[in-house]
Amino acid sequence: MILIDGKAVAEQIKKEIAAEVESMVANGEKRPHLAAILVGHDGGSETYVASKVKACEVCGFRSSLIRYETDVTEDELLSKVRELNQDPEIDGFIVQLPLPKHISEQKVIETIDYRKDVDGFHPVNVGRMSIGLPCFISATPNGILELFRRYKIETQGKKCVVLGRSNIVGKPMAALMMQKAYPGDATVTVCHSRSHNLVQECREADIIIAALGQPNFVKADMVKEGAVVIDVGTTRVPDATKKSGFKLTGDVKFDEVAPKCSYITPVPGGVGPMTIVSLMRNTLLAGKKSIYK
Amino acid sequence: MILIDGKAVAEQIKKEIAAEVESMVANGEKRPHLAAILVGHDGGSETYVASKVKACEVCGFRSSLIRYETDVTEDELLSKVRELNQDPEIDGFIVQLPLPKHISEQKVIETIDYRKDVDGFHPVNVGRMSIGLPCFISATPNGILELFRRYKIETQGKKCVVLGRSNIVGKPMAALMMQKAYPGDATVTVCHSRSHNLVQECREADIIIAALGQPNFVKADMVKEGAVVIDVGTTRVPDATKKSGFKLTGDVKFDEVAPKCSYITPVPGGVGPMTIVSLMRNTLLAGKKSIYK
Repeated sequence: MILIDGKAVAEQIKKEIAAEVESMVANGEKRPHLAAILVGHDGGSETYVASKVKACEVCGFRSSLIRYETDVTEDELLSKVRELNQDPEIDGFIVQLPLPKHISEQKVIETIDYRKDVDGFHPVNVGRMSIGLPCFISATPNGILELFRRYKIETQGKKCVVLGRSNIVGKPMAALMMQKAYPGDATVTVCHSRSHNLVQECREADIIIAALGQPNFVKADMVKEGAVVIDVGTTRVPDATKKSGFKLTGDVKFDEVAPKCSYITPVPGGVGPMTIVSLMRNTLLAGKKSIYK
Repeated sequence: MILIDGKAVAEQIKKEIAAEVESMVANGEKRPHLAAILVGHDGGSETYVASKVKACEVCGFRSSLIRYETDVTEDELLSKVRELNQDPEIDGFIVQLPLPKHISEQKVIETIDYRKDVDGFHPVNVGRMSIGLPCFISATPNGILELFRRYKIETQGKKCVVLGRSNIVGKPMAALMMQKAYPGDATVTVCHSRSHNLVQECREADIIIAALGQPNFVKADMVKEGAVVIDVGTTRVPDATKKSGFKLTGDVKFDEVAPKCSYITPVPGGVGPMTIVSLMRNTLLAGKKSIYK
């Protein structure tokens, strides 16, 4: 069993990005600049945004954090989005989700210029990904592809079961894994809460990508000997022994599943660090105008 | 075994659309207007476009056919597309594919205003479909959904195997069948030329949607007793006994598969007629501005 060290890969990629940025700057080009809009003070969101800002520093990017209180109106937020769309200083930006209930997340996402949509949530980027055209691919699925690449995990023709059909992980992951490309070219099955045969599908899978958000859902008897298991789950399960009061828990019952796997990601330290690094990569691509002019 | 009569369903839907159009006109609204651009004289394309024009008549739509010879330049074609985008008389339009090799189909598709893209090929429509937002859904997948609806075929939690991963059938079909909606909510598997386990996947399927373009590919021993089989294949196989010189042949070996099925579509007369009717429905939606303002 090989433990996929997402943290180490992420550190390595940040170094590669930083080296590329320094050579860009040495050539007189400007540093990529990521902006993040954060509404309110949700604990998870604060942590994510802080990690993104820190990752920007490590990569040599400029970053701008724009904060609003939870009572910001949709109009105020949308006009800031439009301002960032127009701002030539900003290469890409994100609006940290979730947003307060009185603001339509979909409206905000669709207002972002898709050429600056480094989260890859805009319909143009989602559609282009599905068609197989260059685009900003959303961070979590892209991070998982990169883990396959770095560990040279074979995917062609394999049975890949994706657990979960969210717009930010399950669906794009499935779309990417079925593309005629590496990583990809797999036989992809998407299972979800309504699937009658989820357990059987998992048992036949060469690759399982678990993104249900249900702690310890995938058990040893659901996994084939030699399978590759990617755990996207990061549920905060209360844990009095932790200083934070919770323990990040994956969708996979790691202790019993790991011995059966050829490769497995831990939680934390697997997919999580790759997600932020994928956002950094998209920001670099935005700065270089590699995808859209 | 129930034979799904796509032709009859299509006729019924055209009547429903025609009735709706007449009531629109009676209310002083304008008739929906579909334009089609046809480049060259490919036999298949001529046939498809003629059928679309005829279907417009039956539905009470206005239609405009715009023809170019194969030597039309990409620029000429793109400027016509832009003109149609701006023309308030035109509710929706299509550019019949394939196009000559010197013209980028993707560029043409992306130049079409997504609000008039009744073929549903523009990235915005593809992306919105994946996310589950209102959009123009491409004709063939939408026609198949309508057959499920009209025959009240259960899909929730079922294992649905899609054979083929084309951008116009396989991928959108998979995206639709996994949505939390009816028809949909299925466990979807996409198989293709690289799949190691295609036969086994088919054998376990409750629903098979065959869109490989390989005549008679699906044989009886690949189909479970009681399965629903939807045949999207329409390959022209040479046949000297036919006046046209060819026989439209599906991906399913109908004679041996049909007896095992609960429902099956024939070729011709199954999915084909529904495809054109789906385009008519999209044109009606465009005329009524039901999806985009």
